[in-house]
Amino acid sequence: MKRRNFLTGSAAAGAAAAAAAAFPAPAISQGVMEWRMVTSWPKGLPGLGTGAQRCAESIEKLTEGKIKVKVYAGGELVPALGCFDAVSDGTAELGHDASYYHLGKSPGCAFFCTVPFGMLPHEMNAWMYWGDGQALWDELYAGFNLKAMPAGNTGTQMAGWFRKPIKSVADLKGLKMRIPGQGGIVMGKLGVTNVLLPGGEIFTNLQSGNIDATEWVGPYNDLSMGFYQVAKYYYWPGFHEPGPTLELMINKEKWDGLTPFLQAAIQAAAAQENVNMLAEFDARSGPALQELIQKHEVKLERMPRDVLEAQGAAAGELMEEMLASSDPMVSKITSSFLKARWELAQWTRISSQGFANARLLPFKFPRG
Amino acid sequence: MKRRNFLTGSAAAGAAAAAAAAFPAPAISQGVMEWRMVTSWPKGLPGLGTGAQRCAESIEKLTEGKIKVKVYAGGELVPALGCFDAVSDGTAELGHDASYYHLGKSPGCAFFCTVPFGMLPHEMNAWMYWGDGQALWDELYAGFNLKAMPAGNTGTQMAGWFRKPIKSVADLKGLKMRIPGQGGIVMGKLGVTNVLLPGGEIFTNLQSGNIDATEWVGPYNDLSMGFYQVAKYYYWPGFHEPGPTLELMINKEKWDGLTPFLQAAIQAAAAQENVNMLAEFDARSGPALQELIQKHEVKLERMPRDVLEAQGAAAGELMEEMLASSDPMVSKITSSFLKARWELAQWTRISSQGFANARLLPFKFPRG
Repeated sequence: MKRRNFLTGSAAAGAAAAAAAAFPAPAISQGVMEWRMVTSWPKGLPGLGTGAQRCAESIEKLTEGKIKVKVYAGGELVPALGCFDAVSDGTAELGHDASYYHLGKSPGCAFFCTVPFGMLPHEMNAWMYWGDGQALWDELYAGFNLKAMPAGNTGTQMAGWFRKPIKSVADLKGLKMRIPGQGGIVMGKLGVTNVLLPGGEIFTNLQSGNIDATEWVGPYNDLSMGFYQVAKYYYWPGFHEPGPTLELMINKEKWDGLTPFLQAAIQAAAAQENVNMLAEFDARSGPALQELIQKHEVKLERMPRDVLEAQGAAAGELMEEMLASSDPMVSKITSSFLKARWELAQWTRISSQGFANARLLPFKFPRG
Repeated sequence: MKRRNFLTGSAAAGAAAAAAAAFPAPAISQGVMEWRMVTSWPKGLPGLGTGAQRCAESIEKLTEGKIKVKVYAGGELVPALGCFDAVSDGTAELGHDASYYHLGKSPGCAFFCTVPFGMLPHEMNAWMYWGDGQALWDELYAGFNLKAMPAGNTGTQMAGWFRKPIKSVADLKGLKMRIPGQGGIVMGKLGVTNVLLPGGEIFTNLQSGNIDATEWVGPYNDLSMGFYQVAKYYYWPGFHEPGPTLELMINKEKWDGLTPFLQAAIQAAAAQENVNMLAEFDARSGPALQELIQKHEVKLERMPRDVLEAQGAAAGELMEEMLASSDPMVSKITSSFLKARWELAQWTRISSQGFANARLLPFKFPRG
């Protein structure tokens, strides 16, 4: 491994650092590196924002303070969706983000976060840690001077909040819904009008009837957004985001210059956050779900079977399009992901899924 | 936190170290601690044995070599099921093991690994990292001079290998099966005769018809055991071990004497192995399952519904017995576990499980 001088950056990095001059520049004093972590998350957002903060603290702790990390919420140092460029050009050394925000860089980025009807969190980890996932991610991101690794997961998201019940796929036609990204593309194939809205404007638009529906995350985050006050139907399952993996991005030049110890420490911090954030979302979603049902009388509904099948077929079409991409890298990533998805789904069916279905059979079991 | 002198151990620890004198004694040279990790696993056993080895290497790497770890397979330093005592009395500083092997110490130990019809891996993590799991574990183990934390998971196990098909709960009566632990107790309630056999003797007993059935782990480990040669029916789901969490045990006196940095490094190594081992089992089980079906013509069968309901009810009885335990610690752990289980199962139902069920609907989707 080559060791490079942290003080010499590319011209691009220099320009970006100058642009961000309102913030103190990274410094090395007594062997301590002072790094910046940009994120796409609102300040203190439970789960995502707090998870990024925790990951930063783990990096400090596990490097024995050799790398100090200051975390910036979305918009503080660079725009919320500017993390990719900021870490790539060295404005920040680290980023905590979702790779499906970078489809403009390459549509292949989607697979390292989540795609419609893709993989569950444990399946993503199998592909990332033991399949071709990490190697393909490295190959794709190296072209952008980035190294990334899994550093969190929200768990399977909910289908969303609807003002009126959805009884069949016909009810989707003309529906105005806030559902960004590939989920929105799939819903568009089924006649849904996708309305782009920043997080802070969803509630009022749903209240006024400007939109009929919105997806967000799951009970833990959705409860605090208050959507239950203006839309009573809470649908599951979320076909569009089955296992959203969050990423820790590192400026590749900086990464390559780290000692094996510092690299191992960062990898451990990321892996620890990968398992810890999912545990947080699960642990908090359980009680939040009960509060929504019991206190706020939310109607919990399964999406009708014909809707799920139509969403599945439309997602399948999208995957066919990505397989046929003229960009060989996109095609290669899609193919690897889909092979892993099929094989892992066969195994999930008879293991965790098979067990979870058996657990719902009507036998007597104490609740503590 | 108190710092203690590593060179002064208890009398018990001294005696145990003397008993293990065939092995070089732990030493501190130039600030390096040379630690021993005992395990319950056969040497090099894929998943469990290799995972323990990997965890030991992570500890070395993340402590920057300040703690060196030598791993012992089951029986090498102490008997396979003697890890608990060995780490408790200081014969070894570390152990990698399954807490449900320690029911003789306290029946409450079961919950920190897995119990029949209990929780899935991601639910275990939610209870451990964000619920009361870790605190209860600390309380229970402190009485044995132990600290433990999750450090691996095999994923939901298979119901096992059967020489003849199981068509209803009546077929279980008189069945001779190798199924140790609480799974065996539950099966005993349904008329199964439990035959205790060490791993190395299962194959020949199944071949000769001395036993009619055996459980082991899942496709990854089962394939290499060759059970498909002598029993063609491979049943799912395994009600008895839905999310077996492996433990890293640390002698508590040693743990309390570590600096915050060394404690954080060990915790990160354990958490990393927690997510990594499950990913390995999943990634390897997918192809192994296909090989069993396609190459070895194994018949993959779902356990009949009446069997699953009878197993569920019998497991529920076992949980009622543990709730009513005269040992308040056992009762407290059982209650916390069951409360978490119920709440998390409601959330799993509409998230990962709901998605996985929708994914099996018959829509067209490319396989890569």
